[in-house]
Amino acid sequence: MVFTEIVRTEDIKLKDAILLEGLPGVGNVGKLAAMHLIEELKAKKCMEIYSSHFPPQVLIDEDGIVNLVNNELYYYNGKGKERDLLFLVGEYQGMDSSGQYDLCQKLIAMVKEMGVTTIYTLGGYGLGKLVPDPRVLGAATSNDIVKLFKKADVEFIDGEPGAGIVGASGLLLGLGKLQGIHGGCLMGETSGYMVDPKSASVVLKSLQKLLGVSIDLSELEERAKQVDSITNQLKDIETSDKEERSDVNYIG
Amino acid sequence: MVFTEIVRTEDIKLKDAILLEGLPGVGNVGKLAAMHLIEELKAKKCMEIYSSHFPPQVLIDEDGIVNLVNNELYYYNGKGKERDLLFLVGEYQGMDSSGQYDLCQKLIAMVKEMGVTTIYTLGGYGLGKLVPDPRVLGAATSNDIVKLFKKADVEFIDGEPGAGIVGASGLLLGLGKLQGIHGGCLMGETSGYMVDPKSASVVLKSLQKLLGVSIDLSELEERAKQVDSITNQLKDIETSDKEERSDVNYIG
Amino acid sequence: MVFTEIVRTEDIKLKDAILLEGLPGVGNVGKLAAMHLIEELKAKKCMEIYSSHFPPQVLIDEDGIVNLVNNELYYYNGKGKERDLLFLVGEYQGMDSSGQYDLCQKLIAMVKEMGVTTIYTLGGYGLGKLVPDPRVLGAATSNDIVKLFKKADVEFIDGEPGAGIVGASGLLLGLGKLQGIHGGCLMGETSGYMVDPKSASVVLKSLQKLLGVSIDLSELEERAKQVDSITNQLKDIETSDKEERSDVNYIG
Amino acid sequence: MVFTEIVRTEDIKLKDAILLEGLPGVGNVGKLAAMHLIEELKAKKCMEIYSSHFPPQVLIDEDGIVNLVNNELYYYNGKGKERDLLFLVGEYQGMDSSGQYDLCQKLIAMVKEMGVTTIYTLGGYGLGKLVPDPRVLGAATSNDIVKLFKKADVEFIDGEPGAGIVGASGLLLGLGKLQGIHGGCLMGETSGYMVDPKSASVVLKSLQKLLGVSIDLSELEERAKQVDSITNQLKDIETSDKEERSDVNYIG
Repeated sequence: MVFTEIVRTEDIKLKDAILLEGLPGVGNVGKLAAMHLIEELKAKKCMEIYSSHFPPQVLIDEDGIVNLVNNELYYYNGKGKERDLLFLVGEYQGMDSSGQYDLCQKLIAMVKEMGVTTIYTLGGYGLGKLVPDPRVLGAATSNDIVKLFKKADVEFIDGEPGAGIVGASGLLLGLGKLQGIHGGCLMGETSGYMVDPKSASVVLKSLQKLLGVSIDLSELEERAKQVDSITNQLKDIETSDKEERSDVNYIG
Repeated sequence: MVFTEIVRTEDIKLKDAILLEGLPGVGNVGKLAAMHLIEELKAKKCMEIYSSHFPPQVLIDEDGIVNLVNNELYYYNGKGKERDLLFLVGEYQGMDSSGQYDLCQKLIAMVKEMGVTTIYTLGGYGLGKLVPDPRVLGAATSNDIVKLFKKADVEFIDGEPGAGIVGASGLLLGLGKLQGIHGGCLMGETSGYMVDPKSASVVLKSLQKLLGVSIDLSELEERAKQVDSITNQLKDIETSDKEERSDVNYIG
Repeated sequence: MVFTEIVRTEDIKLKDAILLEGLPGVGNVGKLAAMHLIEELKAKKCMEIYSSHFPPQVLIDEDGIVNLVNNELYYYNGKGKERDLLFLVGEYQGMDSSGQYDLCQKLIAMVKEMGVTTIYTLGGYGLGKLVPDPRVLGAATSNDIVKLFKKADVEFIDGEPGAGIVGASGLLLGLGKLQGIHGGCLMGETSGYMVDPKSASVVLKSLQKLLGVSIDLSELEERAKQVDSITNQLKDIETSDKEERSDVNYIG
Repeated sequence: MVFTEIVRTEDIKLKDAILLEGLPGVGNVGKLAAMHLIEELKAKKCMEIYSSHFPPQVLIDEDGIVNLVNNELYYYNGKGKERDLLFLVGEYQGMDSSGQYDLCQKLIAMVKEMGVTTIYTLGGYGLGKLVPDPRVLGAATSNDIVKLFKKADVEFIDGEPGAGIVGASGLLLGLGKLQGIHGGCLMGETSGYMVDPKSASVVLKSLQKLLGVSIDLSELEERAKQVDSITNQLKDIETSDKEERSDVNYIG
């Protein structure tokens, strides 16, 4: 009754590659970061994953053409000392717990076969308040990767995130560890209230160091400024509202 | 544990047929349109589909006889240049995501076997407000069908419906496309607040052109007038309510 | 992953037997009626059905002994012209739609094997208001059974129940019909607000005629009087409340 | 689609062992009691159970290392007349009904193989109010175990808990009984509002008698005092609040 169909749009073989997961999540931080990297590195699509664990839904493109919701893999062949990269992106994660487990299990088996030896997952860490200077928090499957991450300005704070990591960003690491693939998670601090390009951009700064690649972040930073500007306007309105109200209180 | 039982009430073979899906949905537009076409074309039942993806429920007819909820297929042998038609109708869609995928997968395999080569799905596009002159919006699996639909007064608007198409109307197209069967969706604009025969009737106007059949829409249009009349009375009551309230405001 | 275990506490073979379903439902009408009949006819347990479709729960008896929740079958060998009876009772129905289908499918296959040729399901029909003189409404899989039921004072009213019959009482008939076993449902009208022995007692009056058995209903009728008495006291309190309030209105 | 992976961290064989279940539940009474016993007896881990019935989540330890949520077995080889013990603990129970059944079925088969012949489950019985002197209530699969429990100051009260026992504490007994393994449940009375070390400590007093082991409860009792102290402060605040309010009433 479970349906999962793999469409290989290009048959590829990678060497000692890193899987970078950037599925939707808190602040869409992971998705923004992965999509930006795909564009900047001109990574190419090699696989589409369709599954009954996704919603029964088609999306419609600008030409009116329907496409069944899916997850997709993009690859990038590292130049020089760079490692090969494989990106996991999509519009949805598996919709329930058993769907998450099933998709992640299948994916790990598949990417292992394709040459993946490390998994980095990208996500947001929601603080429930505005974050002017987001940090990048980390978690990893081994002490070696903790050390590696710390060199790339990733911070490890005891007890954070307290609830652990839920969804594909956690499960790919947890299940990968059981199967002997190591890796870590980069979490950009974010309010959790809106899509957060600033948080995605700090995650990418750490990721560049980890991957030894150099990419242009100006587009993300431009979008981050726009979001900041809107946020500040909202704060101004709120502040003046409060002032007016306290005026009334003084008068009354 | 999943139960699906097919009862063939007539063994038929179609040629280059079109599947027309009209299951319940927004405004019941698709169901009304398909049921009207079945009646006008005197299509005959050839299959009943029972499944644990439907609710555990029997319906009771006017003689007190119980019938397990199901989906049904009706067929119509095209005359002259008309193509053969197969209708999918019923009281329910599959109740959850995996049920939707499972039923649509099984159905596509089955209708392919029966001679279906094209899938048109019929539905409503809910606008959340009254729609005096509903348009028919389209989405399709290929540019060829987009062109075909445009000739039949179906409109394609970039970004609508923004959420794509959820349920059997979307899934039959998305899964069909993966299996090499092309098709499209006709969505009548509707408020989404009530059953909408007017929207069903504009969908049928486009569908007639696509199918090259000519059918009598007067019954649907009569029902549309009744719905309009009730809606207008409700609007009058609402308007006079507002006027009275503003009177009070003026006096006060 | 689905777990269903059958424990046969006695190996029996029935002849042309009727399955009587009395699982919990609206007003517990069906359960009360079936349990009363089991006691009066001194029917004996022959099977326990355990399943992961029931809640993960044990019940504790008066000696502190735990028992996993289950459904049970009791049998009665008809005397003279009476037909053999098999009762289906329990604390729970299957918890979700696929569980309901799975349990009913398995049960029908099993009772067919044991000699069941007819299925009568017992239930309540909730009216959402107090019902001083409940009627027994019917639904059946064939016209023959409709006729039979009418002779036993069962009423058939076009359009009631409008939503059909949900749960085991409906599904056993719907799935049974697909497998060539006919039967019907007896629904005692009930408020749906409380356990209703009066409704169970009218269902049993019709059932006695159908089965040609004669049983003592005095215990159920005694409990019905107690419920009536409590209901009347509640109504008195409510009425005097309203009177007091309207007094206040007059004074004010 | 269901994923369950067993990691044996040590290959052990026990003799006539007792399984002690202490998974999270009401007041975390069972978990506290089992964890305390594991520490005091220096029981060692022998198995990790990973499953798609648990949430798709990793927890992060103080070094930043991720671990997939799981259940774990710890063993203790009885000294002298003591029986061997096997502990079942973890952060979660199976998340839905079929997951509970599936995990408990698999676990019973596995621990039987490992030498378990008795199952004791530990839990809390929520009263919805503060419990100054919690008792230990019992339920069991046989009269022999009822007698055994009564000697260890476990009380059996007809009709309590009225809803039976839900979750692993009930299911392990119910399914175990079906498979010929007997056992019982020890439930410490608790408010159900907070984690309750006092209730865990009374459960352990009964359990010591049952197991013939002697352990130091001072740490649990210290934590119980802290919780009592906080509770009393809250009660004081509440009481003084009420007094103030009634003062106002007198004045007014």
